[in-house]
Amino acid sequence: MSQQRALLSGVAVSPGRASGPVVRVAEPLEAPPSTPAPPDPAAEAARIEPAAQLVAARLEKQAETATGEAATILQTTAAMAADPTLVSQAEALVKNERLPAARAVHQAAEGFAEMLAAAGGYMAERVRDIHDIRDRIVAELLGLAPPGVPELTGPSVLVARDLAPADTAGLDPAKVLALVTEEGGPTSHTAILARALGIPAVVAVRGLLAFEADALVVDGDTGEVGLADADAPILAATAGGPAEWNGTGVTADGHRVKVLGNVGSAADARAAADAGAEGVGLFRTEFCYLDASTEPTVEAQRAAYAAVLTPFAGKPVIVRTLDAGADKPLAFLAPDTEPNPALGVRGLRIAFDRPEILDRQLEAIALAARDSGAEVSVMAPMVATAAEAAWFAERVHAAGIARAGVMIEIPAAALAAREILDAVDFVSIGTNDLAQYTFAADRQLGAVAALNDPWQPALLRLIALIGKAAKETGKPAGVCGEAAADPRLARVLTGLGLTSLSMNAAAVRAVGASLAAVTREDCEAAANAALAAADPAAARQAVTNPR
Amino acid sequence: MSQQRALLSGVAVSPGRASGPVVRVAEPLEAPPSTPAPPDPAAEAARIEPAAQLVAARLEKQAETATGEAATILQTTAAMAADPTLVSQAEALVKNERLPAARAVHQAAEGFAEMLAAAGGYMAERVRDIHDIRDRIVAELLGLAPPGVPELTGPSVLVARDLAPADTAGLDPAKVLALVTEEGGPTSHTAILARALGIPAVVAVRGLLAFEADALVVDGDTGEVGLADADAPILAATAGGPAEWNGTGVTADGHRVKVLGNVGSAADARAAADAGAEGVGLFRTEFCYLDASTEPTVEAQRAAYAAVLTPFAGKPVIVRTLDAGADKPLAFLAPDTEPNPALGVRGLRIAFDRPEILDRQLEAIALAARDSGAEVSVMAPMVATAAEAAWFAERVHAAGIARAGVMIEIPAAALAAREILDAVDFVSIGTNDLAQYTFAADRQLGAVAALNDPWQPALLRLIALIGKAAKETGKPAGVCGEAAADPRLARVLTGLGLTSLSMNAAAVRAVGASLAAVTREDCEAAANAALAAADPAAARQAVTNPR
Repeated sequence: MSQQRALLSGVAVSPGRASGPVVRVAEPLEAPPSTPAPPDPAAEAARIEPAAQLVAARLEKQAETATGEAATILQTTAAMAADPTLVSQAEALVKNERLPAARAVHQAAEGFAEMLAAAGGYMAERVRDIHDIRDRIVAELLGLAPPGVPELTGPSVLVARDLAPADTAGLDPAKVLALVTEEGGPTSHTAILARALGIPAVVAVRGLLAFEADALVVDGDTGEVGLADADAPILAATAGGPAEWNGTGVTADGHRVKVLGNVGSAADARAAADAGAEGVGLFRTEFCYLDASTEPTVEAQRAAYAAVLTPFAGKPVIVRTLDAGADKPLAFLAPDTEPNPALGVRGLRIAFDRPEILDRQLEAIALAARDSGAEVSVMAPMVATAAEAAWFAERVHAAGIARAGVMIEIPAAALAAREILDAVDFVSIGTNDLAQYTFAADRQLGAVAALNDPWQPALLRLIALIGKAAKETGKPAGVCGEAAADPRLARVLTGLGLTSLSMNAAAVRAVGASLAAVTREDCEAAANAALAAADPAAARQAVTNPR
Repeated sequence: MSQQRALLSGVAVSPGRASGPVVRVAEPLEAPPSTPAPPDPAAEAARIEPAAQLVAARLEKQAETATGEAATILQTTAAMAADPTLVSQAEALVKNERLPAARAVHQAAEGFAEMLAAAGGYMAERVRDIHDIRDRIVAELLGLAPPGVPELTGPSVLVARDLAPADTAGLDPAKVLALVTEEGGPTSHTAILARALGIPAVVAVRGLLAFEADALVVDGDTGEVGLADADAPILAATAGGPAEWNGTGVTADGHRVKVLGNVGSAADARAAADAGAEGVGLFRTEFCYLDASTEPTVEAQRAAYAAVLTPFAGKPVIVRTLDAGADKPLAFLAPDTEPNPALGVRGLRIAFDRPEILDRQLEAIALAARDSGAEVSVMAPMVATAAEAAWFAERVHAAGIARAGVMIEIPAAALAAREILDAVDFVSIGTNDLAQYTFAADRQLGAVAALNDPWQPALLRLIALIGKAAKETGKPAGVCGEAAADPRLARVLTGLGLTSLSMNAAAVRAVGASLAAVTREDCEAAANAALAAADPAAARQAVTNPR
């Protein structure tokens, strides 16, 4: 960095480097006062629903102009704002306790937030969203500007404690040079969306909020954040620039590595196809179950899956069976309370006790595959041993689906990759969970986020075992975690012997172009350099910048 | 098994084989009725405290005849029974709601249990203890026999859903042939105490309670449980039999492997020294902090540590620094609520933010080492990277302690064993946590207990990486998890290149004798056989029975 000395550092979560003036995202609103008591409680209570509806409508409108994951997040948040339970509880507080409307909304939302926090896991993560909704409705009632990102008058580096999904989803990438947050981790919404938007981002930067700066330079590759000269020219993201790619995943010397999309809805599938993905490496099926209080019927599943598969007729799609439990509890499965849900009965483990749910899902997938003409394979989440993998493959084949595979996201599965590949047709590495278990570091927890870095040499060593097993057995091994979306790490993964990379639609072109610019030998050299590095920063340093 | 066909199977947690008549442990009491209302509430309420005191006194008396861990558990349970809060809450329920005393105790205990369950982690595990206390006091008030293990009239195989710490602690090993439970896991109290008592045990046996049998044969090596002929002769535990050992850990051909004790109190240290341990491989220091609402002073720590070190004057002792967090939250550290405490800020991670607590502990350890004359080394729990290990070693050496090491209990640390050994003087493997993370399977959770088996080949492969790094660097690498207490697994671990084994006092002699009966080459053959096995059962099979 020539322009400045790095003063702070955090976890680099979205590549590229940018500099420019700082815009700070306001901290959450303080609790509104509980006095004065409204003179006409009925009239005061009647103000709440219109305010909530207005907030919901604004979010809905934002959702219309957004795509993919951002649209889904905005729609979900809008639905929470319009939730009649929150409104009616707040109304009751105004009428019964004579609170001002803003205070009543704040208090009612707090009750929800506490319930969610106590539920833990995925539900606890939603507390952030409840607070966002709360602050938007309260601001509306108090006649204040909506909280979150202020309107940007020019290109800016956004600085925040953490960004709410609704904040990041509404961002205009043309005006945002980079994102920097004091909290958050590599798999936080901030990080995922920054990558989707192609904006450099660094999270978990300790001391950021206390650091006074008019302009910052942000390096999304090294995690460094430094003072920039306020008069210096604005530097927009330099992550690869406009990537040229011919649409086939292949190195300069002809080594084939499929570049695929991760999708979780029909909208995602269209976005991935439009971006040029050669197929789908991870089709998450949870969307079909998430809002269901009972298990969806086979026919309902069939229609939902077919809508996602259709854009990929004639192309390969890997469908992952239901990954419930842990951070994604499903109402109809009613999981037990577990002290550590991430180490509990989740993913395929649920199917051991209730195989009929899996069998019905496999039936629906087989039907949807025929309906759509996509070349469908199926894989299971949270597999630990070769015996579990064999149990799953038998059921997949019995359902008339030709290719059965498993996710490798538990360290034991990586250590038994050879035996697992003997039992199935392919494997796919979920780097987010694999990192979480390998480092015993919760991917939801900012305090341990620095460990959950996909460039960690120890993680790459586990992945190397899988690449070796793939070579020995001649069977495919892909990556479908966030690691695959990093253009430079994509080269390392190729060098480790993996045969496909699957990522969000926004990263497809840059990764395809990154592979096209190097030879297989370059990739192997990059892999060896990263494996031998002492830490993630050294691993990044050791791998040559993309041309 | 010649005597019968195995009909059920579970997780083998304490070695040996035994058969004999079944004694079933009663299921917990049902909730007592809330009517009739007592005619004299004050008199009814006055019955509660004496009943609670009687239960506490009985447990105290049991504690006096027990030793080591069993004594600690009984003392803790007795203290819970005598807790005035429980008694006064129950008294209030009798007076205010006119409940019978038994019902009031039940209801008050339930309130506590719910609070503990909501707190999660270590606290949630205590729910079992609260229920045990509750049932004892209720039985006393109703004039029923105390719940739990009935008085044994002869040698018996005990069958239970799960055993309360107080149940197992009161067992007479002379009358108990084996323990079998439907729930529980390899690190449950049942398992740990069975090993301490030298009783074969199998846990997590699905279908056990519904299985009707007058006599059972139990194999604590394979996990098989089968019908025995009720008239067949009783077979007492055959785990190694009366072990002969000369007190030095060494194979038949002179390869030295230190046989050490795991201790957590002065009583443990005396028991380990009496059992012939050559030193201490794991000195857990949590006992010094557990009941403290503020951090103990350096002088208080010094005295507590010196009491544990004194029986090992002139011998090696490895002290582990405070391992708080996760299942062992400490009042004075007030940890944040985390969605998955086992993947959160625990062990050394707490010290990164609050190094002064670590520095004071190191000061106390250095002083106690001088006081006692023990050869003290210090190691840190929950280390993930070589950089963390180096940070710790620097502080240990700065405190004037010569030898600094780290636990390897996170998969990433095993994968970076070579770099970590370059940064420290020794490592010690915590197999319980290492298995939990490697298999993403909570060690507190019965449903995933079968994965947490120390004979899992994937786990042994990680351990092999550590053994290899130890050979390359010439530095010591030990095992201090439960795996080291299994006489046959001890040979495998020796064959993998580990240089010391540390275990509970009861296992010392059997492990020493097991090593003395074989050569280093035998151990290496056992290790290779176990590494190549498909699953834990095959790994056990592949390793020859001890002579």
